[in-house]
Amino acid sequence: MSLSGKNVIILAENFYEDLELWYPYYRLKEEGADVKVVGMPGVESYGSKHGYPVSPDLTPKDVEIEKIDALLVPGGYAPDKLRRYPEMLALVRKAFDQGSVIGMICHAGWVPISAGIIKGKKVTSVSAIRDDMVNAGGEWLDQAVVVDGNLISSRTPADLPAYCKAIIAALSK
Amino acid sequence: MSLSGKNVIILAENFYEDLELWYPYYRLKEEGADVKVVGMPGVESYGSKHGYPVSPDLTPKDVEIEKIDALLVPGGYAPDKLRRYPEMLALVRKAFDQGSVIGMICHAGWVPISAGIIKGKKVTSVSAIRDDMVNAGGEWLDQAVVVDGNLISSRTPADLPAYCKAIIAALSK
Amino acid sequence: MSLSGKNVIILAENFYEDLELWYPYYRLKEEGADVKVVGMPGVESYGSKHGYPVSPDLTPKDVEIEKIDALLVPGGYAPDKLRRYPEMLALVRKAFDQGSVIGMICHAGWVPISAGIIKGKKVTSVSAIRDDMVNAGGEWLDQAVVVDGNLISSRTPADLPAYCKAIIAALSK
Amino acid sequence: MSLSGKNVIILAENFYEDLELWYPYYRLKEEGADVKVVGMPGVESYGSKHGYPVSPDLTPKDVEIEKIDALLVPGGYAPDKLRRYPEMLALVRKAFDQGSVIGMICHAGWVPISAGIIKGKKVTSVSAIRDDMVNAGGEWLDQAVVVDGNLISSRTPADLPAYCKAIIAALSK
Amino acid sequence: MSLSGKNVIILAENFYEDLELWYPYYRLKEEGADVKVVGMPGVESYGSKHGYPVSPDLTPKDVEIEKIDALLVPGGYAPDKLRRYPEMLALVRKAFDQGSVIGMICHAGWVPISAGIIKGKKVTSVSAIRDDMVNAGGEWLDQAVVVDGNLISSRTPADLPAYCKAIIAALSK
Amino acid sequence: MSLSGKNVIILAENFYEDLELWYPYYRLKEEGADVKVVGMPGVESYGSKHGYPVSPDLTPKDVEIEKIDALLVPGGYAPDKLRRYPEMLALVRKAFDQGSVIGMICHAGWVPISAGIIKGKKVTSVSAIRDDMVNAGGEWLDQAVVVDGNLISSRTPADLPAYCKAIIAALSK
Repeated sequence: MSLSGKNVIILAENFYEDLELWYPYYRLKEEGADVKVVGMPGVESYGSKHGYPVSPDLTPKDVEIEKIDALLVPGGYAPDKLRRYPEMLALVRKAFDQGSVIGMICHAGWVPISAGIIKGKKVTSVSAIRDDMVNAGGEWLDQAVVVDGNLISSRTPADLPAYCKAIIAALSK
Repeated sequence: MSLSGKNVIILAENFYEDLELWYPYYRLKEEGADVKVVGMPGVESYGSKHGYPVSPDLTPKDVEIEKIDALLVPGGYAPDKLRRYPEMLALVRKAFDQGSVIGMICHAGWVPISAGIIKGKKVTSVSAIRDDMVNAGGEWLDQAVVVDGNLISSRTPADLPAYCKAIIAALSK
Repeated sequence: MSLSGKNVIILAENFYEDLELWYPYYRLKEEGADVKVVGMPGVESYGSKHGYPVSPDLTPKDVEIEKIDALLVPGGYAPDKLRRYPEMLALVRKAFDQGSVIGMICHAGWVPISAGIIKGKKVTSVSAIRDDMVNAGGEWLDQAVVVDGNLISSRTPADLPAYCKAIIAALSK
Repeated sequence: MSLSGKNVIILAENFYEDLELWYPYYRLKEEGADVKVVGMPGVESYGSKHGYPVSPDLTPKDVEIEKIDALLVPGGYAPDKLRRYPEMLALVRKAFDQGSVIGMICHAGWVPISAGIIKGKKVTSVSAIRDDMVNAGGEWLDQAVVVDGNLISSRTPADLPAYCKAIIAALSK
Repeated sequence: MSLSGKNVIILAENFYEDLELWYPYYRLKEEGADVKVVGMPGVESYGSKHGYPVSPDLTPKDVEIEKIDALLVPGGYAPDKLRRYPEMLALVRKAFDQGSVIGMICHAGWVPISAGIIKGKKVTSVSAIRDDMVNAGGEWLDQAVVVDGNLISSRTPADLPAYCKAIIAALSK
Repeated sequence: MSLSGKNVIILAENFYEDLELWYPYYRLKEEGADVKVVGMPGVESYGSKHGYPVSPDLTPKDVEIEKIDALLVPGGYAPDKLRRYPEMLALVRKAFDQGSVIGMICHAGWVPISAGIIKGKKVTSVSAIRDDMVNAGGEWLDQAVVVDGNLISSRTPADLPAYCKAIIAALSK
């Protein structure tokens, strides 16, 4: 399997878009990656937009960020919550700085905006937050997936196949 | 009553924050204003974050914007929907340009961001979208209510009394 | 502000009508009153008809009733629960006897009925409970707000502006 | 079967107490009665307090009241709706006047109150509405089932066996 | 009353069909039977398909099976859960072997299938699981109620009157 | 892409397990397959166990079964509905007979049971329906994925990676 030995984390909060968390989760497992979900301390379970539960494996403090090959942020309204935690933003910044893959889909872009890593980057997102992405200094493109360095972004659930292919390709290098 | 003869519109979409729509609605009626809810064509009812229904009175096309004294945007996740409609953004821009009061609370700021009217203005919002407000050129202040020219903004439902007082004061001039 | 120094309590239970609790809550705060929510011991939060949460500040035992200037009862089906607690009915009776403002809207009338304070009074309510009000000795009027001595009553959420104006006027005397 | 040839109607509206409608429904069918559900025109289905659906068989206008041997009202908050329809109250009054069995359980008493048939009768109900029953002229008893002439009343779902036994006995005379 | 001194248990799990648990529960109580609900240890309450709560009285270990005259299984999707517990299946087998009445309605048949007691028996069920019943060795009949020895089965809620009559008749022998 | 030119259908009904429908859907699209969802005529949308919507692309009548390379059945309680439609069972049988890949996961096995294609086959499923699978003549194995000829089966959502790998491998031959 192409990704065995790779470590991936997915950030979770309530109202995550169901498939934008779970499709990459299982997809990267299928390729042999170790995939863990990160949530805040004291939370046993988060519910998706439709109530699908996910139990975090780790808190931000548990994450050995230097061993992480990819950090993914699902969409839905979870990003509106995630961007409020300095610990979560710190994870994103460190992962970005060390060259890990950063994946964001749909509304996920709010988190990298608040982590301050969008400036000068080509990106995409759900059209609703395009203005926020552009105001943060991103060059916004209307494509199923946009890869700029270690930043990989997609628009909506319909882009999940293209999104995951790009993530797998980047992790396989 | 201080506001009789004044015309107010409130923009609505699903997942509006219940009290951020209804408190100003009844409050300005109490002062004698004519208050109408604006929704997209073909929609009989929007539900709040908790499912409280509101039936729009007007579509954007029905609004005689030059007669409008105040345009208010509630928070919740309705602003994430509202900013996608060019008709809604056009109402905000015209109201702003003609000097009408523009009120925004909590997550409502996303709409004025996309209407392009935040630049150089003192504003507040729920802390989660502060970065979006700042990236849009706003000067963000942590106050119950911020008034800059015809732009009036507040942070959360707890600020509703201060928010409405400021709106009433502005409309009473 | 007209009501600074005034103490107001609102009785809460599950299935309270959302706006009939929250509009007076914020409205009287806007006027400077101290407003507290009263719930039964051991309850962290009540949900409205639509699930909007409210956290009680006080239990009936905590209330220093002689310092209370107004006691308000919201509608919805909370009154059907509230009237079952002798402690709640005792608060209503004492507040009434000492001349505090008693506000009731929509279905709230069931509580004053069970407190035994309706007899000989002019009142209104949602039409559904008119017969209960009349059987309790009230003179039922179809008006947005009815004021009879310290008893103030309204019919439905649409009457909230008139209801709060009357409460503020009574408290300002 | 003891009740074959007997005609029974049950009044329905939203938020009926699930078992207080369905237990008598099936119980009287088990005894051979013809049981029909009555709802307002244009309504395909009502939901119980928990969302269990019931499809009305008849509107008030369809009911040949002189052929009805028993009219039953379930509890929950359906009675708060049912008492608003003059057509429903007319059915109750006519059935009562002609000596049909009138069954009411829990909050159902609000309907006979508004139909004006409680005065001077021994009755029971959920304790929450005891004051309304007493104010309507009823003599309220704390018993599983109270039979006074053709009026049969019970307190809560736990009384359903006693309630149905009394109804069957009355219909078997 | 015909069933006084008889002991009946009903097996419960989440998503039980509301009336298929509660109608027999109250019906057999009406006849004087002692009726108890059995659930797994540590569970305070199960919810029906529509969320109607039931609090178990006993765990499988508490049941003195040799004293039980009838064991009933409701339908809905509770049977899909119940058949996973060896303790529950053991109760069914022992009750069957000692000649107690075994009642099953709708989807309940999955539990007797897994208890291994269907082989060679005439049975019915909701049509959806007919193939499972036949594959388990049952002779499937399309009747409101099928009685074969101590095994009593019905198809859907509409058969509840016939189902309970047959159970009462069997227990009255 | 390995599966371009391949045609896949997924059968849908209400209460499908969210990920057991959507993970294979996007996964096979990622490999280039044409994936369509089949539902009964007149249905605009089915909801998952958590309410995630899916809009069918085709009715059974629209399917050109001889062009289908794989037919997949998701778990949840959708299979309890799907097995009631002769049209759906006919699709399964024809696809099986012509050697198309038949995928079933979790509770999906009920559909192949009713299609009569389990006899003599090695299979797996959620443990709850093992008895039904065995009674239908299957040899039940406790493995993440079981492949026997064109029949591919898995146990639960955690097996999705193994399940899809096996499906892709079978379609790639």
